[in-house]
Amino acid sequence: MRLPGGFLASSVRAGVRKDRPDLALLLAEKGANAAAVFTKNRFQAAPVVLARNGLRKSGGRVRAVVVNSGCANAATGSAGLSAARRVRNRAAELVGCPPEEVFAASTGVIGVVLPDAKIRAALPGALHRASKSGLAAASRAILTTDVGPKVAEASFRVGGRTGRIVGIAKGAGMIHPNMATMLAFVMTDAAATPAFLRRALRDSVDASFNAISVDGDASTNDSLLLLANGAAGNAAVRPGSRDAARFAAVLADALGELARLCVLDGEGASRCVEVVVRGAASDEDARRMARAIGNSTLCKCAFAGGDPNWGRFVCAAGAAGPPLDPDRVDVVVDGVVVARRGRPIPAALPRAARRMARREFRIVLDLHLGRGAGRMLASDLTVEYVHFNAAYTT
Amino acid sequence: MRLPGGFLASSVRAGVRKDRPDLALLLAEKGANAAAVFTKNRFQAAPVVLARNGLRKSGGRVRAVVVNSGCANAATGSAGLSAARRVRNRAAELVGCPPEEVFAASTGVIGVVLPDAKIRAALPGALHRASKSGLAAASRAILTTDVGPKVAEASFRVGGRTGRIVGIAKGAGMIHPNMATMLAFVMTDAAATPAFLRRALRDSVDASFNAISVDGDASTNDSLLLLANGAAGNAAVRPGSRDAARFAAVLADALGELARLCVLDGEGASRCVEVVVRGAASDEDARRMARAIGNSTLCKCAFAGGDPNWGRFVCAAGAAGPPLDPDRVDVVVDGVVVARRGRPIPAALPRAARRMARREFRIVLDLHLGRGAGRMLASDLTVEYVHFNAAYTT
Repeated sequence: MRLPGGFLASSVRAGVRKDRPDLALLLAEKGANAAAVFTKNRFQAAPVVLARNGLRKSGGRVRAVVVNSGCANAATGSAGLSAARRVRNRAAELVGCPPEEVFAASTGVIGVVLPDAKIRAALPGALHRASKSGLAAASRAILTTDVGPKVAEASFRVGGRTGRIVGIAKGAGMIHPNMATMLAFVMTDAAATPAFLRRALRDSVDASFNAISVDGDASTNDSLLLLANGAAGNAAVRPGSRDAARFAAVLADALGELARLCVLDGEGASRCVEVVVRGAASDEDARRMARAIGNSTLCKCAFAGGDPNWGRFVCAAGAAGPPLDPDRVDVVVDGVVVARRGRPIPAALPRAARRMARREFRIVLDLHLGRGAGRMLASDLTVEYVHFNAAYTT
Repeated sequence: MRLPGGFLASSVRAGVRKDRPDLALLLAEKGANAAAVFTKNRFQAAPVVLARNGLRKSGGRVRAVVVNSGCANAATGSAGLSAARRVRNRAAELVGCPPEEVFAASTGVIGVVLPDAKIRAALPGALHRASKSGLAAASRAILTTDVGPKVAEASFRVGGRTGRIVGIAKGAGMIHPNMATMLAFVMTDAAATPAFLRRALRDSVDASFNAISVDGDASTNDSLLLLANGAAGNAAVRPGSRDAARFAAVLADALGELARLCVLDGEGASRCVEVVVRGAASDEDARRMARAIGNSTLCKCAFAGGDPNWGRFVCAAGAAGPPLDPDRVDVVVDGVVVARRGRPIPAALPRAARRMARREFRIVLDLHLGRGAGRMLASDLTVEYVHFNAAYTT
């Protein structure tokens, strides 16, 4: 788990959470170009508001990333915004950069103002400890109720040099009531402009983080940040070039892997199911139907039970809105055809059920209507999920 | 549970299900004007296709309603359509009416062709037993995994006469895999034209059956039929008249009550929650947000746990899309304000939790943005729901 050149990381205990590291710091020694996507929820936490404005103001430059777990600083009004601003300003002071080049993110309990004094007091220690080997520690400090850290890494050729890309994430689930958020931070030493990064990020996020479902709820704090510091020494990737295509593929793989890890680590999840809809009238139709299946509580229960309940899958797709002719649909569970042209194949069901006993499998609906295709990664819905989320902890 | 004048009902055992009545017959002795709404799922069962066409062909006249439980006759292609047609034709022959005046509905397992021979063989017995006191029996024969029958009734004044309205329904849940469907049949002896009935039904169904959520999945067989036979002796209700307003209110009440009973009898449901959003920019916005809260698995788990988790409710509303300013939102649990202008009131939470321990309660979000309002009835999400639906029974 080696950081790309020019990046440092660390974690410390700020005391927001009890007895565990809860503050992560990522540093781009000479700064980095940046692009980010944020939750589309209308209810956005203070750090999201601040980070979005900061990126706009800095023209897509980031020098430091400060992430705390334990408190999401959401639903905290102007008090929350001031607290986040104080953390940002102190970090900027210590690092020696404009405040807008500090990207701050928070995750944890909703409705509590960030205890910014604790975080400000811990920042010098975090800065002091920042090192080339600090990523593993940072990847753990951003977790809340995740089972374990989520890391993706790869090397690639870019402009005749070898670039590296490394990403860390925390899970998409809300295990405990009021525990928010998916966060992901991806760093590369390739050189690329903020505009190029924005576009590459938007393209890959639709196929990865925007195509996963643990419980279908977008949180108040979801943030995904991509940093490129150019330490690899390549000339900035040009849009439309072969390097651009390669970079996009590498980024898509990294985000896909982080998204997959988030689903596998979803609250109470026992399975990660790839739902594919093809033969739809358009890609957009296919994506909507794959999403409807992946979000359906009935389908999620069938995933949990290892039940090749093809009627439910088609029913959920049919409820999504786009055209579908049930008499044409094929349903395939990990290679086993359980329905062809809308009619069940009962003899295939036991074999399909055995495939669904695996931790990861794929369900394909072929609508035979057109050439549209879309996919979705979904967790199952287990008794443990309900236990977690019905617990009274407000 | 008295039928309105001019209607008869019965139930018999046709043998589709084991050892229990599974065929209900409703008769309008001299025929009735009719209106119906059906599932919007693209995946529609054979009886839905047939019933919709029949109503169009008959110009909104219905003489007999034949309902079987145990088999939904969905995903059965042309074989299913032929089977449904044979049942309809046999019933028409026995009753002595055109086939398009027979409304046939089915509920039960998906993917199995209706055993129409059994049903045809049972029809003469059902016709023979049809009586003014047969409604209770019919209300039970249409059930599948429902806990008990669902009936709503009322009397009202119309054109100087006393009219009656009686409705029966089966639950909205899909307890067992492949068990579909919400069905409701509402009969009145008031006189009204099919056009008037269509409009009244459309208006009331949006506020009742279209505003409930057990698991958010629209099934392949959902059907709601309204019959008015004029036996009360009133002149046909004129649109825009005082009678029309009274009839609309009575119909809305009856459908509201049936919808409420369906939610309370939802699979594994322990609570029926009225979710109200007001102060939205428009009614449509408010309805979308109320629906998002009612369908959210996270919110449903909070309902089950009796947890006044206001942050989740606002977060689900914020994810729905319409405008929302979290710093303005009030959240009220059965009269107890748990958040005002986006800030929690911790002292109120224990009292709110006690309200949420009730079987029925109300959650209100006031957005303070405009005058739009909308509501939704939602069941909670319990461990029992997952147990039911994860069971392998394909």
